[in-house]
Amino acid sequence: MTRQLSLNAFLHDTGHHEASWRHPDSAIDRIHDIDFDTENARIAEEAKLDAIFFADAPGLWGATPFRPAGHLEPITRLAAIAARTERIGLIATASTTFYDPYNLARLFSSLDTISKGRAGWNIVTTQSEAVARNFSLSELPSASERYVRAQEFIDVVTKLWDSWEDDAILADRESGRFFDQEKVHAIHHVGNHFQIEGPLSQPRSPQGRPVYVQAGSSNDGRAFAGRNAEAIFTAHQTIEDAQAFYADIKSRAVAFGRSPEDVKILPGISPFVADTRAEAEELQRYVNSLTVPAYGIAQLEGLAGVSLAHLELDEPVPVEVFGQAGDVLDNSRSRLQVIANIVERDRPTLRGLLHRLAGARGHNVVAGTPTEVADIITEWFQNGAADGFNVMPPLYPQLLQEFTQKVVPILQDRGLFRTEYTGSTLRDHFGLARPESLYGADANEEAHVV
Amino acid sequence: MTRQLSLNAFLHDTGHHEASWRHPDSAIDRIHDIDFDTENARIAEEAKLDAIFFADAPGLWGATPFRPAGHLEPITRLAAIAARTERIGLIATASTTFYDPYNLARLFSSLDTISKGRAGWNIVTTQSEAVARNFSLSELPSASERYVRAQEFIDVVTKLWDSWEDDAILADRESGRFFDQEKVHAIHHVGNHFQIEGPLSQPRSPQGRPVYVQAGSSNDGRAFAGRNAEAIFTAHQTIEDAQAFYADIKSRAVAFGRSPEDVKILPGISPFVADTRAEAEELQRYVNSLTVPAYGIAQLEGLAGVSLAHLELDEPVPVEVFGQAGDVLDNSRSRLQVIANIVERDRPTLRGLLHRLAGARGHNVVAGTPTEVADIITEWFQNGAADGFNVMPPLYPQLLQEFTQKVVPILQDRGLFRTEYTGSTLRDHFGLARPESLYGADANEEAHVV
Ligand SMILES: Cc1cc2nc3c(=O)[nH]c(=O)nc-3n(C[C@H](O)[C@H](O)[C@H](O)COP(=O)(O)O)c2cc1C
Ligand SMILES: Cc1cc2nc3c(=O)[nH]c(=O)nc-3n(C[C@H](O)[C@H](O)[C@H](O)COP(=O)(O)O)c2cc1C
Repeated sequence: MTRQLSLNAFLHDTGHHEASWRHPDSAIDRIHDIDFDTENARIAEEAKLDAIFFADAPGLWGATPFRPAGHLEPITRLAAIAARTERIGLIATASTTFYDPYNLARLFSSLDTISKGRAGWNIVTTQSEAVARNFSLSELPSASERYVRAQEFIDVVTKLWDSWEDDAILADRESGRFFDQEKVHAIHHVGNHFQIEGPLSQPRSPQGRPVYVQAGSSNDGRAFAGRNAEAIFTAHQTIEDAQAFYADIKSRAVAFGRSPEDVKILPGISPFVADTRAEAEELQRYVNSLTVPAYGIAQLEGLAGVSLAHLELDEPVPVEVFGQAGDVLDNSRSRLQVIANIVERDRPTLRGLLHRLAGARGHNVVAGTPTEVADIITEWFQNGAADGFNVMPPLYPQLLQEFTQKVVPILQDRGLFRTEYTGSTLRDHFGLARPESLYGADANEEAHVV
Repeated sequence: MTRQLSLNAFLHDTGHHEASWRHPDSAIDRIHDIDFDTENARIAEEAKLDAIFFADAPGLWGATPFRPAGHLEPITRLAAIAARTERIGLIATASTTFYDPYNLARLFSSLDTISKGRAGWNIVTTQSEAVARNFSLSELPSASERYVRAQEFIDVVTKLWDSWEDDAILADRESGRFFDQEKVHAIHHVGNHFQIEGPLSQPRSPQGRPVYVQAGSSNDGRAFAGRNAEAIFTAHQTIEDAQAFYADIKSRAVAFGRSPEDVKILPGISPFVADTRAEAEELQRYVNSLTVPAYGIAQLEGLAGVSLAHLELDEPVPVEVFGQAGDVLDNSRSRLQVIANIVERDRPTLRGLLHRLAGARGHNVVAGTPTEVADIITEWFQNGAADGFNVMPPLYPQLLQEFTQKVVPILQDRGLFRTEYTGSTLRDHFGLARPESLYGADANEEAHVV
């Protein structure tokens, strides 16, 4: 079979465009309603997408009165959606900086069991000072400290997820033995951040471990991804940038002794799809016109750390303003570099730049016919820029529906995307192997006596 | 209307009897299957019960090869069940010793929103050394330290749940304002255990706050319950013990300026119900015969801290063995006192005692006809021993079904239990008021500028 695309629906409030909620048809009254989430998940499942995804931060990070704020916790949300869907993967973001590994291991293992093998974890380190103050910390640990903790965190939860061997449960009514003590292992983890005895409080989940997803693009973030991630979300405006990122991550994975196929690279794409290009562009223009410039300017100032007060909305942005953005690999400035590149390449007005960012915060926003959108996807997929896409519809559910009903069939006709699920777990959808337990028969680990 | 019973189904593996899993009709292969949970929840909902409940510990506390071990995390489990039920309350246990308040506040607030107002939190401090070692602690904090932390924990999460006023969301497409900054409050909590800035990452949930449930019976536990709990789970073998507990808790609540009706007291009851008493007793005898004495003895030795090796299975247990059990109000020995009372009062053989405990770990196990069980419930309810019951069927779903199909209708005929839900939230079912936000218009709190 030809290599297959992975397609993921990134659910987000009324849509990824920051002003989508002001659209007269937006579902602004339903963003905290699980039935709305479920409807979107079912649209994605109907189209055989690999997974749905929720971002997350344990705090009101970046909240402004001018956008929807305050989303529900994603693991509980996905547990509820699991109960009303059958096949689609369920990826929740959770922070290694602000969670505790034992609690988090339980939550994801439960989600995986409840969903019969559909859980994925988007592993983030959370770059917000405000969030740190919700966790009794006076300041946020540095990015490199956060990634060091993240690595130990992954090591711990991996051991916990493996601590019951797959065949540990006997459930033998006759002998009265429920489980085999030899196959349930203490993990005895002793590290700099954590000392965790284990075993996990529950048996191994259907996938063995949830799928490890990641979204960092700094140097530390890429190193972490190359070592641990099985799928990577990323933001690129051009195929060239995406190709460079793709090659970099694959080679990092290989350096860690992994196969390039073990890491799926999924750039974001935010598609305005309509039957004609004019209609698609008109819809995009209309939604852009609903943005609040003062809000966009404040966001941009926060990101760049410079004042933009001296700029005119309808004059081109001088290149120097973001010139200081620095190296793409400098921690937490990678999004800023995307912006500096736009300014240098396209010389937009300030309003134009705000509109570009309003779409999906630096992700690739496209407006076109179903064929045009399918062509972009195909081009990136076939030219070393992507293994699939994290689809970020500007307006939910309408523009997810346009995508699934019109773009997906074209990709299916081209033989690039499944017409039926061929497996039942997220690992099956992504074509990832189910990992063996670290504590298998050969591991020669001390068994845990409970 | 006459005062109404609260009835709660405590879901637990194949049932509360420790040997129920060995019964030929047990669902031992389904204890990690959310569909089994859902079926049990629906049986309870069909009968208009107030809530279902899951116990919890973040570790393999008390696991033995001779019993089902390894349950899923209850909040995720209830989120999934919420998606497949409509009205029944959903109570999850979570530990104030091992959770972090911001994460926990989010999880329960999400469960409450997802379930449209049906969440309850069984607040426990977790008395297990083994669990502490899953959280980088070399030893468990003392019971009184745990309760001090628990109180600060409650204070923090209460403020977080109240941090968005009920009408904070404007969702005004016209003006572009999504929420009212004046109505979203930082909590500025600075305490001995926690320094939490807030606000919560999500709007106030349908119930304002989940229902506060508690299950401690030591002196510290009762003080905590009298101050904070809206429902209390407890274990008593006799109506006299239950009456004493009931009076004590109600008077403690009153001492905290609360009304006695604000605290529902729900003893456990584990009913073997059959059409004749002989059948019920025969079923109980049969399930008792499936227990593994070595397991029960080990459990009992662990609890009492004494060796029972010198005792004969079929000789009466000498009173002195548990005589040292001490004061009922001594921390974490209250379950042991229940046992000492049984021994002193009923002089059972060791086997007989093991069978008594096998039923439901010290809860009241009864075997009888539907009318006999309804009579006990009625007697306790009408004589100051209970506001309702935490029903702990020995075998799921069979003995839950016997209870809901045969006992519940008798209670309904007596006018003691609803025949239809009269409200939609767990607070409605329990007859508890929805709390106002601490940050209401009069509170004169500094608004949070996000
Ligand atoms: C599609 C996508 C989704 C992301 N979702 C989250 C998120 O939910 N929570 C979060 O804290 N960070 C999220 N991030 C940010 C990354 O985790 C990462 O912190 C950021 O890209 C900066 O990279 P660095 O951490 O390597 O510096 C996301 C990034 C992308 C591209
Ligand atoms: C019905 C019932 C359910 C309980 N569930 C739990 C539980 O799930 N997790 C837990 O750690 N303790 C649980 N407990 C124990 C109590 O929280 C409490 O620790 C115990 O009764 C001892 O009281 P104390 O904490 O006041 O010493 C439960 C107790 C009862 C009566």
